[in-house]
Amino acid sequence: MLMSELSRRSGVPVATIKYYLREGLLPSGAPTAATRADYDETHLRRLRLIRTLIETGGVPVAAIRRILSAVDDTSVSQHEMLGTVQYSLGPRLAPPESADPDWGAARAEVEGLISDLGWTVNENAPARTLLAGALVALRRFDAAPLDAGLRAYAEALAPLAAEEVASIEVAAANAGASEDRAALSEAAVVGIVLFERVLIALRRMAQEDASARRFNQPAGRR
Amino acid sequence: MLMSELSRRSGVPVATIKYYLREGLLPSGAPTAATRADYDETHLRRLRLIRTLIETGGVPVAAIRRILSAVDDTSVSQHEMLGTVQYSLGPRLAPPESADPDWGAARAEVEGLISDLGWTVNENAPARTLLAGALVALRRFDAAPLDAGLRAYAEALAPLAAEEVASIEVAAANAGASEDRAALSEAAVVGIVLFERVLIALRRMAQEDASARRFNQPAGRR
Repeated sequence: MLMSELSRRSGVPVATIKYYLREGLLPSGAPTAATRADYDETHLRRLRLIRTLIETGGVPVAAIRRILSAVDDTSVSQHEMLGTVQYSLGPRLAPPESADPDWGAARAEVEGLISDLGWTVNENAPARTLLAGALVALRRFDAAPLDAGLRAYAEALAPLAAEEVASIEVAAANAGASEDRAALSEAAVVGIVLFERVLIALRRMAQEDASARRFNQPAGRR
Repeated sequence: MLMSELSRRSGVPVATIKYYLREGLLPSGAPTAATRADYDETHLRRLRLIRTLIETGGVPVAAIRRILSAVDDTSVSQHEMLGTVQYSLGPRLAPPESADPDWGAARAEVEGLISDLGWTVNENAPARTLLAGALVALRRFDAAPLDAGLRAYAEALAPLAAEEVASIEVAAANAGASEDRAALSEAAVVGIVLFERVLIALRRMAQEDASARRFNQPAGRR
């Protein structure tokens, strides 16, 4: 199809499609003339993925570029691809530039937790720094969960994470063998980004309910 | 103390302190001369809170302004204050402008879930839209959790959220009666923002571990 049809079918303006082509988010179409190219269903699917990541996932274009490179690189293992997607997402946190005993203690606590749980987590995983930074700040405000609390969080999340990874595989299987990898990758990307939104949304609602129960009159406001 | 000392003790540059004063994030000091004001421990504490929200929480200044107004407004109930904090945080999602059957179905599913769980959640809570939007996108990519899965998430999160709300109250009690509300509010703000980071970080590590178990060779890479 021509770019005009790709635009019509995807609902994405031509100028935006050109921007994605320039940024390397969308692969070029097959050239049919000096200024024309032919686009197919893979372009349509890729556009849908990009729009979902931007609009629903809030993922910046630079991160999407990294994610899609991993998706398209068939030499990368499934595990590494999932890692690239996850490591590309915010929020990120940089450790302090100078030595900070609170940070050191929090890092040691994170390492102890991972080791106690027997989890396989790369030592450069951004989530380690994210967790350590949150613990440092929570401690400074006397609002930190106890060690047991942290472990309870981890243990509640582990089966959910395993389900997510399993559901990503099921989605790929449903898509049929011929497009296995592309479908697996798409479902994986959307799953990793959006299951996190599901978790955040449900946690916020659970918190609102807990606050209503604890601080509001029994009749409550709704 | 003078602004120079406030800057030295907080580690926040004078220009930044002046910006927070202009933006209404930091209350004015007590004027001691035409161009001088006296700052105290409450200013120091407030600066620490602002820096934590920006640096560790990634909260934009406009959201911090809304949050701090609720913290300082003693006519607002504890439950409403927590709600203002939570509702000020991203990520947010706007529903589509035109009618969309997928959105309608997702909204109905969210309402059904909240009702089944017996949760008290304001009907304008942004988390409802955030969850519905994530479900719409997940469905489009065949990556959505089953209904039972969504409920499993909610049920895993509910006791954690109740613990968080309880720990916020405990932190306030430890701070002593005289500064109850200010301490409760500070701990609440930091807790609401940063427990979410804890959850995201632990979930990402759990996911990395689940992916390693499922997709990697038994020996694994670490």
